[in-house]
Amino acid sequence: MISKLIQRIQEKNAPIVVGLDPMLSYLPAFLLEKAIDDYGETLEAAGEAIWQYNKAIVGAVHDLIPAVKPQIAMYEQFGVPGLIAFEKTVNYCKEKDLIVIGDVKRGDIGSTSAAYANGHIGSVTVGNTELRGFHEDIVTVNPYLGSDGVKPFVDVCREQGRGIFVLVKTSNPSSGEFQDREIDGRPLYELVAEKVDEWGKDAMDGAYSEVGAVVGATYPEMGAVLRKKMPHAYILVPGYGAQGGTADQLRPYFNEDGLGAIVNSSRGIICAYKDQKYSDFGEDRFAEASRQAVIDMKEDINRIF
Amino acid sequence: MISKLIQRIQEKNAPIVVGLDPMLSYLPAFLLEKAIDDYGETLEAAGEAIWQYNKAIVGAVHDLIPAVKPQIAMYEQFGVPGLIAFEKTVNYCKEKDLIVIGDVKRGDIGSTSAAYANGHIGSVTVGNTELRGFHEDIVTVNPYLGSDGVKPFVDVCREQGRGIFVLVKTSNPSSGEFQDREIDGRPLYELVAEKVDEWGKDAMDGAYSEVGAVVGATYPEMGAVLRKKMPHAYILVPGYGAQGGTADQLRPYFNEDGLGAIVNSSRGIICAYKDQKYSDFGEDRFAEASRQAVIDMKEDINRIF
Repeated sequence: MISKLIQRIQEKNAPIVVGLDPMLSYLPAFLLEKAIDDYGETLEAAGEAIWQYNKAIVGAVHDLIPAVKPQIAMYEQFGVPGLIAFEKTVNYCKEKDLIVIGDVKRGDIGSTSAAYANGHIGSVTVGNTELRGFHEDIVTVNPYLGSDGVKPFVDVCREQGRGIFVLVKTSNPSSGEFQDREIDGRPLYELVAEKVDEWGKDAMDGAYSEVGAVVGATYPEMGAVLRKKMPHAYILVPGYGAQGGTADQLRPYFNEDGLGAIVNSSRGIICAYKDQKYSDFGEDRFAEASRQAVIDMKEDINRIF
Repeated sequence: MISKLIQRIQEKNAPIVVGLDPMLSYLPAFLLEKAIDDYGETLEAAGEAIWQYNKAIVGAVHDLIPAVKPQIAMYEQFGVPGLIAFEKTVNYCKEKDLIVIGDVKRGDIGSTSAAYANGHIGSVTVGNTELRGFHEDIVTVNPYLGSDGVKPFVDVCREQGRGIFVLVKTSNPSSGEFQDREIDGRPLYELVAEKVDEWGKDAMDGAYSEVGAVVGATYPEMGAVLRKKMPHAYILVPGYGAQGGTADQLRPYFNEDGLGAIVNSSRGIICAYKDQKYSDFGEDRFAEASRQAVIDMKEDINRIF
């Protein structure tokens, strides 16, 4: 999957991913009003509204980008109707030939991690029929439980040609509470990075591994170190834009050849219509505002090369 | 919620929780066959089979126990139909007046963690209507992202009278890869335990906090240390039975008064009918085998006091 992701990044000349994290407060009012007219003030209305929002945005930007990253929490909060919207979004993105990175941050042990892996990037068997629960291509994984938690995902990656991004150094202010603490003279996130490198050796796909890493844009000096520690890992970089990361901070995450990293923007794209800069589009043309924000983000990122 | 849990533990004289982790391979063959007859070899059949399995077991054991712990991965692997089975299971357990601990191990940052918290133990608002996505009373939480990831859950606990168990030291063999590494002379899991104690101070519910901890039964010497480090945290103890933990190892997790911990068994209860010890029940009476296994587990645990 990682070689396919790289191919798409090169075709689109866009090492970027659009985060589909639809909070209800992000939506133009008319979308939720319409859904409430149809379904009442229900979870179904919330699911329908975020699905319509996603569909419009993906429809407007899919030709510009290689991948999307739906954040499952934003759907899961609405229970089953929310997860139906997640499923529709994933499947629609795949119809549009986008690579789908499920931001699920799952992690458990043994057969439980295997269940998450099978459900999101692998398959399950019912009777003699192989089926897919959800349909992402890549998922994010939490490493706190160690190899027992991550290896079942790596097995699925290897067997089914899928990918994972393991949380190494996250973009949030308190990420240092545990991740930065020194162990034998180096921070915990470096230990995790070494494990990512080790796990990834069993699942190479060309020059890179199916096992990538998440490293926040907000810590560029750490990005430089981690880029070297994990030579085969693609790095998913959250935190650009709304979280405060700038393009200038992103160079260390990439290799010399411009590969090795993919930068996420969520709010900056899907909420562009609320930004002063794109206010001319207005609420009705929110998806066009998102398209312009993607064009601007591509330009901003590509000027660092 | 933690005071309610304690009350139920005392009423039932059972500091135990039954883990509802239904792998298809655990089910008596007739249950899946019946579901496939009705729904074909589909995700819906898998969801229906595990729901019928759970319903029979919960129906047979609910009067003996204070709580259940469904492992969401086992449902999520079957996509939306699996999560419908999860929802039915949670709601049925609540009808039976059981406390439901969703073993979801979620953890993200800021508004994303808030979305998970709202979806599983809190509520969401659609228009002017407050709704619940899923309906657990307590969930498990992964701490790798630090306070930004955990505090949104603590806020919901405090506001809505719900609870969390934060992963501190997990029961799996490789849990030491990161959790046991020494930082300033003490292992990472102790640092996490100190944070659990700190987070919990904002959400007291009687003598204990709504913020509890997960500490595996397989590491009793660590259990003793952690019991002292987190005086207000209830400890959820996985790893008893099938994972190798014995009752003798459990004493350190409890306080002198017999409170302070709740021990989980999953396979040992829900798969009892496959155990030589309970083979007289046969496949047809799998739920009665589970009931006998709960009775035996209660006796085994209670002899340590």
